[in-house]
Amino acid sequence: MSVVALAGGVGGARLVDGLDRVLPPGSLTAIVNTGDDFEHWGLHISPDLDTVMYTLAGLSPEDRGWGIDGDTFEVLREVRCRGIDDWFQLGDRDLVTHLVRTQALALGQSLTQATAKLCDSLGVERPILPMSDAPCPTSILTKNGEELAFQEWLVKERAAPSVSEARLGGMGETTAAVLAALKAADLILICPSNPYVSIDPILRLAGVSEAVRRTPTVAVSPILNGNAVKGPLAGMILEIGGRPPSAESVAIHYNGLLDGFAVQHGDSFGAAYPTLETNILIQTRQDRIRFALELIEFARDLT
Amino acid sequence: MSVVALAGGVGGARLVDGLDRVLPPGSLTAIVNTGDDFEHWGLHISPDLDTVMYTLAGLSPEDRGWGIDGDTFEVLREVRCRGIDDWFQLGDRDLVTHLVRTQALALGQSLTQATAKLCDSLGVERPILPMSDAPCPTSILTKNGEELAFQEWLVKERAAPSVSEARLGGMGETTAAVLAALKAADLILICPSNPYVSIDPILRLAGVSEAVRRTPTVAVSPILNGNAVKGPLAGMILEIGGRPPSAESVAIHYNGLLDGFAVQHGDSFGAAYPTLETNILIQTRQDRIRFALELIEFARDLT
Repeated sequence: MSVVALAGGVGGARLVDGLDRVLPPGSLTAIVNTGDDFEHWGLHISPDLDTVMYTLAGLSPEDRGWGIDGDTFEVLREVRCRGIDDWFQLGDRDLVTHLVRTQALALGQSLTQATAKLCDSLGVERPILPMSDAPCPTSILTKNGEELAFQEWLVKERAAPSVSEARLGGMGETTAAVLAALKAADLILICPSNPYVSIDPILRLAGVSEAVRRTPTVAVSPILNGNAVKGPLAGMILEIGGRPPSAESVAIHYNGLLDGFAVQHGDSFGAAYPTLETNILIQTRQDRIRFALELIEFARDLT
Repeated sequence: MSVVALAGGVGGARLVDGLDRVLPPGSLTAIVNTGDDFEHWGLHISPDLDTVMYTLAGLSPEDRGWGIDGDTFEVLREVRCRGIDDWFQLGDRDLVTHLVRTQALALGQSLTQATAKLCDSLGVERPILPMSDAPCPTSILTKNGEELAFQEWLVKERAAPSVSEARLGGMGETTAAVLAALKAADLILICPSNPYVSIDPILRLAGVSEAVRRTPTVAVSPILNGNAVKGPLAGMILEIGGRPPSAESVAIHYNGLLDGFAVQHGDSFGAAYPTLETNILIQTRQDRIRFALELIEFARDLT
């Protein structure tokens, strides 16, 4: 069975990590959101790609959703001494990822090629594909009428300004690698990532939602008992979707795309398709493996 | 009195540092070689500009000719883990300089502007001007017929391959800032830097040697009692110049440009212009100040 996972940051990375451990070699591809990508200190940062890579490499910290466990911050300290923008914290080891990526792009390589090279240097064997090689910058329109680049809103402004819209930018060509993975897919999994700013940027690329419609697709709810595990999603469902933060609201957002849905114990609703109700909290690697096995078993019955 | 110093790396930086401490504000400009500039990890490195800046900022180590005293090497350590080229050692604090410069250049600023910005962030007030805003890469032709970029020869190959020629590349326009400084100069000092790869790249730029000819010019010998204080100069005088490494050989190289020459005790020769024979070793700041005062006094009598 060939499985494609559509993924954003931490939640996506954790599910991909679980799948990575239970699926046979060659059967899993992660297509990762690049709408959060931005330039910082002149470097090309891909927060979601990095989170997925670091998680699969076993380098992600347990206690925060970014960077490398045990990283040092000597460069950041000097940046602060010199009065340079320090709102986005890059660790010293993490920085090497951005240097390698920026250099590869400057030499004319694609983001897909740069990501393969980075995975290789980190010992990550599963294909991790950026959703696009072209810039697709997501911005946040606030209720005050400001438009902020996504990372500025999320990190610099700590997601405080109320959101009226997530504006998905760019309209790059879908890459050959992404299209090939989708074509070969027997199952598409929509990871427990933010629908507005992690999954929608992937779905809107040419050919992706078509592939989702023709392929058995299961989503995992990023909302558990009314709360997001991490990040600003609960508030965004209220502010953008005008609905209470719930698994059902997420399902409504994915209207017409799903053949199955995995939710936390107690979050079932009267869906028109099968629902897997279980413990979908996957912070530890043990839980990731346990849930990935349940999810694959559930999905196998649908395909 | 308006003084312009033509400078390369460590020796140049130390003389500029001494002059910086004895000349009144507004009277000193350093024009610095950029023939050694190169790209590493996708960053624009300007070794000589950095050495001059760090020395004036009081950040240079006593025991080595590059980087920042007490710097850490966390990024380099990760670079090594990932199997990336590690022959040019960049410290974590040093790295910020290259990030800032690379970003400024990518945004369309000139190297002159980027250098001013860096000086500002390091608290360096004297104007430090790159000799050119355009690439002028120096390469080394070896006796084996190889052509190596200068830093590759110097650092990666540890200056081991015998040299047949220093090839000075590019022919950028002399910048307005350099021409203005030279025009205003009452005195030009040629620092104790490598004539072939630090000073010649400056002298060959349009308008520079003309300015040197029309302005009282004093050189400081980079050879002391037959040896270079640092670097590969002694061998290069033999291999390129076909002469013994001596202050006199350096003076012959600068044939027709000098109105005075400062040499180490015992290094006088029958020059046709006044010679200052003193202790020209300027490793400590105390020695730099002492020698700068002597040099300015000597030069004042010539102008």
